[in-house]
Amino acid sequence: MADNVLVVHGGGPTAVINSSLYGVLKEAKRQPQVDKVYAAIGGSEGILKERFLDLLQYPEEKLKLLLKTPATAIGSSRYALEQEDYEAMVGIFQKYNIKYVLLNGGNGTMDTCGRIYEVCKDAGIRVVGIPKTIDNDIALTDHTPGFGSAARYIAATTAEIGADVKSMPIHVCIIEAMGRNAGWVTAASALARKKTGDAPHLIYLPERPFDEKEFLEDVKRLHEEMGGVVIVASEGLKNEKGEPIVPPIFKTERAVYYGDVSAYLAELVIKKLGIKARSEKPGISGRASIAWQSPVDRNEAILAGSVALKAAIEGKSGVMVGFIREETADGSYKMHTELLPIKEVMMHERVLPDYYITDRGNDVTSEFIEWCRPLIGPELQEFVDFQEEYVLWRE
Amino acid sequence: MADNVLVVHGGGPTAVINSSLYGVLKEAKRQPQVDKVYAAIGGSEGILKERFLDLLQYPEEKLKLLLKTPATAIGSSRYALEQEDYEAMVGIFQKYNIKYVLLNGGNGTMDTCGRIYEVCKDAGIRVVGIPKTIDNDIALTDHTPGFGSAARYIAATTAEIGADVKSMPIHVCIIEAMGRNAGWVTAASALARKKTGDAPHLIYLPERPFDEKEFLEDVKRLHEEMGGVVIVASEGLKNEKGEPIVPPIFKTERAVYYGDVSAYLAELVIKKLGIKARSEKPGISGRASIAWQSPVDRNEAILAGSVALKAAIEGKSGVMVGFIREETADGSYKMHTELLPIKEVMMHERVLPDYYITDRGNDVTSEFIEWCRPLIGPELQEFVDFQEEYVLWRE
Repeated sequence: MADNVLVVHGGGPTAVINSSLYGVLKEAKRQPQVDKVYAAIGGSEGILKERFLDLLQYPEEKLKLLLKTPATAIGSSRYALEQEDYEAMVGIFQKYNIKYVLLNGGNGTMDTCGRIYEVCKDAGIRVVGIPKTIDNDIALTDHTPGFGSAARYIAATTAEIGADVKSMPIHVCIIEAMGRNAGWVTAASALARKKTGDAPHLIYLPERPFDEKEFLEDVKRLHEEMGGVVIVASEGLKNEKGEPIVPPIFKTERAVYYGDVSAYLAELVIKKLGIKARSEKPGISGRASIAWQSPVDRNEAILAGSVALKAAIEGKSGVMVGFIREETADGSYKMHTELLPIKEVMMHERVLPDYYITDRGNDVTSEFIEWCRPLIGPELQEFVDFQEEYVLWRE
Repeated sequence: MADNVLVVHGGGPTAVINSSLYGVLKEAKRQPQVDKVYAAIGGSEGILKERFLDLLQYPEEKLKLLLKTPATAIGSSRYALEQEDYEAMVGIFQKYNIKYVLLNGGNGTMDTCGRIYEVCKDAGIRVVGIPKTIDNDIALTDHTPGFGSAARYIAATTAEIGADVKSMPIHVCIIEAMGRNAGWVTAASALARKKTGDAPHLIYLPERPFDEKEFLEDVKRLHEEMGGVVIVASEGLKNEKGEPIVPPIFKTERAVYYGDVSAYLAELVIKKLGIKARSEKPGISGRASIAWQSPVDRNEAILAGSVALKAAIEGKSGVMVGFIREETADGSYKMHTELLPIKEVMMHERVLPDYYITDRGNDVTSEFIEWCRPLIGPELQEFVDFQEEYVLWRE
């Protein structure tokens, strides 16, 4: 009897999580010992409820659509598993003759991956992690599939909003970016710039305590200089005490709900400076946009899926596929994959290092931009800037 | 001496306002008596400050980029003109030998257009309006350039967010759409649907008083049925008294500032129903997105620019280019342009008629969808829905 594969998605979707699923299917078709590739419908809960769907039953033309499908085509969950859940899984895997379990997700899912590995290691079932998170906060890997597309989305969106604000420079515009603890996506908005003076004019990251006084000083100065100011702020900005800058709007026993950082900062600008301000919060669009999917990200996501299955078949287990960037003579972008021990990955959340943030904490450094640029794919479209031409022409 | 053309942009940009500018330039190249096509840099203020830029100096390859440039490439303004400003304009037009003045904008700009026409009519200067607004609220025309792209953006964004919410159905997601007085863009989110149960699940328009009790009933019921609920709400929702549902956050002598409707409704759902809710407010992206520009909209915008210049050269003045939809035997989309007297256009703002809104006021009718569909361009991409397949497969 041939062996089966199980793919499980965990946590929030990205624009390329389905591309990794496609990568698994592509590899499975190359491997004669693989019979079925099951998807656990609805994430880890799908394992316990034995909601399995064999994906190889679909024709290639349908599977190819996965490369352009937002969200997760097989569902996901944030279900918190108990120890008894983990133990129950081994029997379920055996019942379906599942020999290779691939978990695609972020830090929470890699933790689950490590625990499933523990319960499976004596049963000959191999467990491999596929990294996925727009937040880019997984340790040891240079970056994670999903980040490049979220970065491309925020850069393009900031460029478009920047063009709009520049063409009628009457207000301060605050864009909220995803990433509550790590500022990678927020920082990537800097890729919107083509020349000095382009949006974003200020960038605020969760890695630095938010200083209201300095913020208002910076906004006031830039508004006087340019009229229109574009700011990108992380949804997770915190004050010096490490508390969210937005006061909680509601608390239940299970959770605390906060308002939007962008709306909070816009209100601050209106009230304290008397300057017209508005908030833009693309929110979930930032991880679901297929229009701004990065082709580099998509290809790496496919690779991660393929490499994960190949590793499991070759006998690896308790590892995650990581991306290692290579030094090249001409500075061009090159990377390879490595299998990282899941135990080490599980240890910490990766935030933006200090050398990627300016001293004043209101922008990123050129080192960050250099690191980030290849991940978002082809250069953003050249916008025609007749206004700029006009200035040159008159002087 | 040959005659010159002046193009002026007014009010907020759209994804295709630069396409109309391109249409003017295209037509100008065909007309031997046209020498220069000036742009008034920064809108109507640019006329008074004589900030004119000759656009025909640029090579065609650069001008073609206008078709894909967000915002307005020559600036815009919301500057309120005084009677003396209008009178000063005639001399300025004569100084630059401007014989054709084309104003591209929404209702406010068409008002300006009518007033400039009044002061110019005895001076042999012809004034023609090019309609432009994502709000689609200009009278007498079937629709306005700019709307089709904003409609495509909100439909695509709602479909992507809908896919995300469906793949992890744990919350209520409220998307805020632009259009403070007219619900055309909000309504267009219905184009995201491919089958029953698809997002958006509820649509709230500014044309109907917002009923909090019915809203909460509807959200509760849908959350129980589906887990994830996607709602699209206009930024301008009002209560029975005609007041904005969001209390003002700040008042100055000049203006009143309101918070975001989406955040307000999300807070309502959290507090009153205890259900996790989040707000998404793409805001300015909704009018600046080139990725979701509708090709139908772009072509009509080019046409509007060309027709406007042609009309002026043929001796027309005090008119706006309007779009008239034709009845066709096979129901296919066909329209032609007509020159509408600007005096009649100036008279009223066009809102969504009753027959486009359902009785309960929480959705649009199939008549609206039929009317809107051709404007957004090619059908939105088919998303793969394996979750749906799974349900079919198990039953």
